[in-house]
Amino acid sequence: MQTGFCMLECGSVRSKNSKNICVKNLLDSCVSTIAFWSMGYAFAYGTEKDSDKNNDYMGHRGFFLAGNGYNNDGGQYAKWFFQWAFAATATSIVSGAVAERCGMTAYFIYAFILSGFVYPVVVYWVWCGEGWLSTGNTDPYFDTGVIDFAGSGVVHLTGGIAAFVGAAILGPRTGRFYTNSDDQTVIKEMPPHNSALQVLGTFILWLGWYAFNGGSTLQITGQGVTLARVCVTTTICASACSLTAVIIKAVLSGGEYDLGYAMNGVLAGLVSITAGCPVVEPWAALLIGIIGAFVYHLSSKLMLYLQIDDVVDAIAVHGFCGIWGVLAVGVFGSSKLVTEVYLSITGEFAKGWVYGGNGNLFGAGLVFIIVNILWTGGFMTLSFGLMSYFGILRVSQKEEEEGLDLSHHGGSAYNNDDKKETEMAFSWFGFGK
Amino acid sequence: MQTGFCMLECGSVRSKNSKNICVKNLLDSCVSTIAFWSMGYAFAYGTEKDSDKNNDYMGHRGFFLAGNGYNNDGGQYAKWFFQWAFAATATSIVSGAVAERCGMTAYFIYAFILSGFVYPVVVYWVWCGEGWLSTGNTDPYFDTGVIDFAGSGVVHLTGGIAAFVGAAILGPRTGRFYTNSDDQTVIKEMPPHNSALQVLGTFILWLGWYAFNGGSTLQITGQGVTLARVCVTTTICASACSLTAVIIKAVLSGGEYDLGYAMNGVLAGLVSITAGCPVVEPWAALLIGIIGAFVYHLSSKLMLYLQIDDVVDAIAVHGFCGIWGVLAVGVFGSSKLVTEVYLSITGEFAKGWVYGGNGNLFGAGLVFIIVNILWTGGFMTLSFGLMSYFGILRVSQKEEEEGLDLSHHGGSAYNNDDKKETEMAFSWFGFGK
Amino acid sequence: MQTGFCMLECGSVRSKNSKNICVKNLLDSCVSTIAFWSMGYAFAYGTEKDSDKNNDYMGHRGFFLAGNGYNNDGGQYAKWFFQWAFAATATSIVSGAVAERCGMTAYFIYAFILSGFVYPVVVYWVWCGEGWLSTGNTDPYFDTGVIDFAGSGVVHLTGGIAAFVGAAILGPRTGRFYTNSDDQTVIKEMPPHNSALQVLGTFILWLGWYAFNGGSTLQITGQGVTLARVCVTTTICASACSLTAVIIKAVLSGGEYDLGYAMNGVLAGLVSITAGCPVVEPWAALLIGIIGAFVYHLSSKLMLYLQIDDVVDAIAVHGFCGIWGVLAVGVFGSSKLVTEVYLSITGEFAKGWVYGGNGNLFGAGLVFIIVNILWTGGFMTLSFGLMSYFGILRVSQKEEEEGLDLSHHGGSAYNNDDKKETEMAFSWFGFGK
Repeated sequence: MQTGFCMLECGSVRSKNSKNICVKNLLDSCVSTIAFWSMGYAFAYGTEKDSDKNNDYMGHRGFFLAGNGYNNDGGQYAKWFFQWAFAATATSIVSGAVAERCGMTAYFIYAFILSGFVYPVVVYWVWCGEGWLSTGNTDPYFDTGVIDFAGSGVVHLTGGIAAFVGAAILGPRTGRFYTNSDDQTVIKEMPPHNSALQVLGTFILWLGWYAFNGGSTLQITGQGVTLARVCVTTTICASACSLTAVIIKAVLSGGEYDLGYAMNGVLAGLVSITAGCPVVEPWAALLIGIIGAFVYHLSSKLMLYLQIDDVVDAIAVHGFCGIWGVLAVGVFGSSKLVTEVYLSITGEFAKGWVYGGNGNLFGAGLVFIIVNILWTGGFMTLSFGLMSYFGILRVSQKEEEEGLDLSHHGGSAYNNDDKKETEMAFSWFGFGK
Repeated sequence: MQTGFCMLECGSVRSKNSKNICVKNLLDSCVSTIAFWSMGYAFAYGTEKDSDKNNDYMGHRGFFLAGNGYNNDGGQYAKWFFQWAFAATATSIVSGAVAERCGMTAYFIYAFILSGFVYPVVVYWVWCGEGWLSTGNTDPYFDTGVIDFAGSGVVHLTGGIAAFVGAAILGPRTGRFYTNSDDQTVIKEMPPHNSALQVLGTFILWLGWYAFNGGSTLQITGQGVTLARVCVTTTICASACSLTAVIIKAVLSGGEYDLGYAMNGVLAGLVSITAGCPVVEPWAALLIGIIGAFVYHLSSKLMLYLQIDDVVDAIAVHGFCGIWGVLAVGVFGSSKLVTEVYLSITGEFAKGWVYGGNGNLFGAGLVFIIVNILWTGGFMTLSFGLMSYFGILRVSQKEEEEGLDLSHHGGSAYNNDDKKETEMAFSWFGFGK
Repeated sequence: MQTGFCMLECGSVRSKNSKNICVKNLLDSCVSTIAFWSMGYAFAYGTEKDSDKNNDYMGHRGFFLAGNGYNNDGGQYAKWFFQWAFAATATSIVSGAVAERCGMTAYFIYAFILSGFVYPVVVYWVWCGEGWLSTGNTDPYFDTGVIDFAGSGVVHLTGGIAAFVGAAILGPRTGRFYTNSDDQTVIKEMPPHNSALQVLGTFILWLGWYAFNGGSTLQITGQGVTLARVCVTTTICASACSLTAVIIKAVLSGGEYDLGYAMNGVLAGLVSITAGCPVVEPWAALLIGIIGAFVYHLSSKLMLYLQIDDVVDAIAVHGFCGIWGVLAVGVFGSSKLVTEVYLSITGEFAKGWVYGGNGNLFGAGLVFIIVNILWTGGFMTLSFGLMSYFGILRVSQKEEEEGLDLSHHGGSAYNNDDKKETEMAFSWFGFGK
């Protein structure tokens, strides 16, 4: 998944910042590793067997994967590894939204906070059996808990909220929005520098999604059947969403088949089906994808209207389609399939609205979305706000104009003319800049 | 596989059309999804348990994966997903051959027809137990049926035939072939714009092939041993074919190690072994690869001689090496291994020619090739011919010269000078072109 | 893995040689296939059941995967396929170090020698149960044998030694080191031409490493627990090493976040943990990674000091961190885990130094490193020396300056201006240069 994000984002920025975004994507994975190993996993899943000693809101054991029941426990190690991949994904979502202007140090502080604390707490609520929103809780919220199978809300919405807060506090790239002589607000398009990398990233992410959605079936009963269904619904939803997005753009722009909409359409479809992939029928996956394309289009427009400068549309794709994904379970969840996958949810509670359910699934999802916006939004506003206050959040005007590759990474990412060779004297302790 | 094809083709076209080919590859996967879900799978595998109600030529149940025995059946869902990947592959083969000049709408109509009807019917014949060429048929053709393990003929030849018809009816790219002042026919070389992407695509395809050839072992007996043999023969054949192709080119061109021949040699070897990978010995895989390189080279030359302009040599690689792959089973099939994998084929029938068999395997393969050429060739001639008649098949001369990225996709795929920023006013319903 | 190496190296060279490095990487895999099938596997694992007939130093059966116990044996075929991937990896390591100046024919001769003979012998010593350094030997060296789980020493050090010898005998690229007017030795930096490809390669390698380290657990007992631990330690070590390397560079260069150090840091960490991944605790993996970053930095500097021109720092990453990886087992190996994975090593013998062991593990590793340097270093010095003597090792001065793509591969890898179209007459037997 990291590979996919990195390629997509690297292709999406202007070439003067492509090395910068690569460094960010490579190192945020590394920072997530340390953060999720030292603290994150403990906050996400650190419970005691005696459930009286646990609370509803966050874990408290297993820091550094150490301690009784963690150290050298194969199940815990495997779970850590799989969950680490999710944590790194949630963290990476933000890098695209704040690209081309966010400071490197600030970005790493953000990455540590999100993957070490903010995100794990959300995981605990929904995916750890003890969490207040978990379907496994002995007294689940709304009598059902929240069905978010592979993380539309837990992973993508959390990342999307952080991306929104980051992009909003940073402000747009210089010159992105301005008022022209007619007093009209004008948007300057800053086109991606390499479409081939973007497409590569999209295909890799699509493939990676089968690992995430499919991998999430490993811990449930009847995994064979569920895995097959997950693959089918994921494929149909992504395809339908991409086709719909391209058609929307073609209609509005007078016949242009837009690569950006095709690619973000695939991702929007994948995010939309992530929560409900094992509990909806193929035809419902088709509808979720079609609606997801409209959600993506409108929220992308909304960001422009609000003059929030999201370089890769991460807020629309992960944030808004993440919301839609969580709500879609409450709309299209089939009682037969819900009960098959989540044994604790039965009868009227297991039905989505189109099956005439009592609305509890939808309500639980809605509450989760609101609380997540408050939690992640609040904490990240504080974090990004403090970094902004201390002046480390945004690079200087001059650095932004020159491009971050030149000012921070020793030169351009591309050297096609073979002339940019520089000289330096040997030194054991320096790099002769 | 889609990732690999997309990167390979994107690197192979001229840069002014690279965004166009990416859109085509991304969306043909999406179109294939809808087509194969709604109709294709039903035509390919839609049979009834009571075999009297089935026919020899096409399926008739399971549209939209709905109906008794399909809806929520884990086995059917898993099979759909695996077969969808094959269908999308067959469909993608054509995009490279018709690149740089085929209209987008025409391409999507083609993709729907091939993956929704033409290709599934071929699948039914060979891979569905009820088909007239299937080894599982109670009265198989030539007493053996056709051994096409992972689709040299079903997938690659079908795609190759469609590619041939498409490229022939479209005609070559403007300026590709012309007569010079000496009355000699001259070929203008239009070099690929990015070799690195091509190599990336080739490596990804190579890796993906293990998934296809290996994955095809999942439904047979003794899968462990077969899977191991498939990996060995696939590796040896691809390597031998690539080395041979490079040597052929080096000898003929006076010492040049050609990257294009190295890459297409790998693919030609993979296509050549796809039909027979589980039923031939390693030494036979070596010979199949060496011969495959000559098949590739000669058929690539033949296309130039016929002035068929195939941008990525898809016809030579998938079409002609697909034919060779099917025939190679009849030549090199080892009776011991054939009987091990296809229990119904025994004795003289199971022997390839080098083992002194009765030639039935070879004959059945030959009939399959001829009938497939008639079927796919005929149907696609009709389809492409109609699109050509209605004037939607080929882009205009002007668009072709400018490049499709500019005329249809809002600008170039690469923006390295960071200057190509355009401005537009905000609008909820437009894109301010 | 090949994909990753190829992209990383293609991005790392100057653009005028990028096609050359792609051909080398594609075809060295093909050469390795033939070499490892015909001879290599037999030298690495060709033993008889009756152990009296085997020796301690190299195998002698199973050439061409033929013969009793090899032909159509599923276990042998599967092992060949997995081991082939290792052999191809070891072979590919060298291509980056000798890039931009090594002749193509010489490179293929080298590839055949290494993957067909030199490397397999090292494999026999350590991984084949009969080898004199194997933990499975009935009378293992130092009473323990060498723990090199997935090949820090067997694969990476062997490749690194060959890279060192190759780069040293070839000499640096023209103009890389020279003495300026102040009599000071000056290093000319020759920057990579495409950072995006480098990062892509790094991510793919990272992912591929899980297949190598994880896949190596398939043949041991208690594989589930071990696999999970391997994933955890691999992740932590790679992340820690990359972060440390970036910090080292940032401190020494005054605040620059270097992409090259971030990427090579990941690889250095992966190489460092490869030997010990199943037998160290997560905290030890962290330390191994941190120390690995210093090993990488210092050895990279050492190569510059010695004026050995290693284009991608392969010697530092694979060679020196490979040494560190083997030694790290003797330092951080946990007796509990060692005994769990290697049943034959118990008590004091199973303890690394930090656990107060008797030093046998460390000693065995040290002997292995020294003997491998003598064996691979000696044999490759002879091989490269002979090729140098016969004048085929290095391309001519003129070819090097023009770039190898122009002189040997029919033109540049990139054709962005769409103008480089050439013409030729059709010919069945030529390419109209």
